[in-house]
Amino acid sequence: MLNPYDDTYFMKKAMQEAELAFDKDEVPVGAVIVIEDRIIARGHNLTELLNDVTAHAEMQAITAAANFLGGKYLHNCTLYVTLEPCQMCAGALYWSQISKIVYGARDEERGCIALKTKLHPKTKMIGGVLAEEASELLKRFFIKKRNLN
Amino acid sequence: MLNPYDDTYFMKKAMQEAELAFDKDEVPVGAVIVIEDRIIARGHNLTELLNDVTAHAEMQAITAAANFLGGKYLHNCTLYVTLEPCQMCAGALYWSQISKIVYGARDEERGCIALKTKLHPKTKMIGGVLAEEASELLKRFFIKKRNLN
Repeated sequence: MLNPYDDTYFMKKAMQEAELAFDKDEVPVGAVIVIEDRIIARGHNLTELLNDVTAHAEMQAITAAANFLGGKYLHNCTLYVTLEPCQMCAGALYWSQISKIVYGARDEERGCIALKTKLHPKTKMIGGVLAEEASELLKRFFIKKRNLN
Repeated sequence: MLNPYDDTYFMKKAMQEAELAFDKDEVPVGAVIVIEDRIIARGHNLTELLNDVTAHAEMQAITAAANFLGGKYLHNCTLYVTLEPCQMCAGALYWSQISKIVYGARDEERGCIALKTKLHPKTKMIGGVLAEEASELLKRFFIKKRNLN
């Protein structure tokens, strides 16, 4: 039997979070954290609304997932995030010992791959899931911002 | 006239925060953020109590300082932290565009220098202020933990 809960399924949920950020005039990045095919945390970028550079989608999802689990380690969890994590978020994911990271679009400039942020040895990372959709939404956001200024 | 508000003065304040963490059975790291010789934010490590890997002293101080300033950028601010920032905290400091980072003890293993975390071009970093005191407190903590287990 086919499992409907594949990476694309959960990345679509992360995309819905990114769209919430878009609607709030935030750089549209969204994230969900999943354990055993169940979403235990959601987050979207809120750096402008909260006036807080630490309020990235992933950071909020990490805090919410640990709160749900009652422990700070995210073993057996997968993070789905629409944009490759930055140094800060990858650094937080390092401490969380999360099992898997799935990202959508690459961030060639400020992403953890280009900046060589160290991931935990327990963590696997793959990318490119719904990359085009994530990238499109980001482009649409920056065009909107440019036209407003 | 001598300015009593030098790096040692503010690092002592960060050390007081680290001692609060020690008393709560947390890895003793403390931080303060200063603008124009005035402390606008304090934080100490609370990862165990909050069950949250993101609750490092620096992260809390960054959020609190931005809240105080009413804006997310920490221009003209200096962070004093008793231990060299990790990748996550250095990544957050990158986004904050903070002017200066002063740390106490080096973290040769997980610190941002060894792991080559990128700092913002606007940010200067110096270290070694009250390094021995910070290091002693950390050692005392790990000896206490070992004796309890």
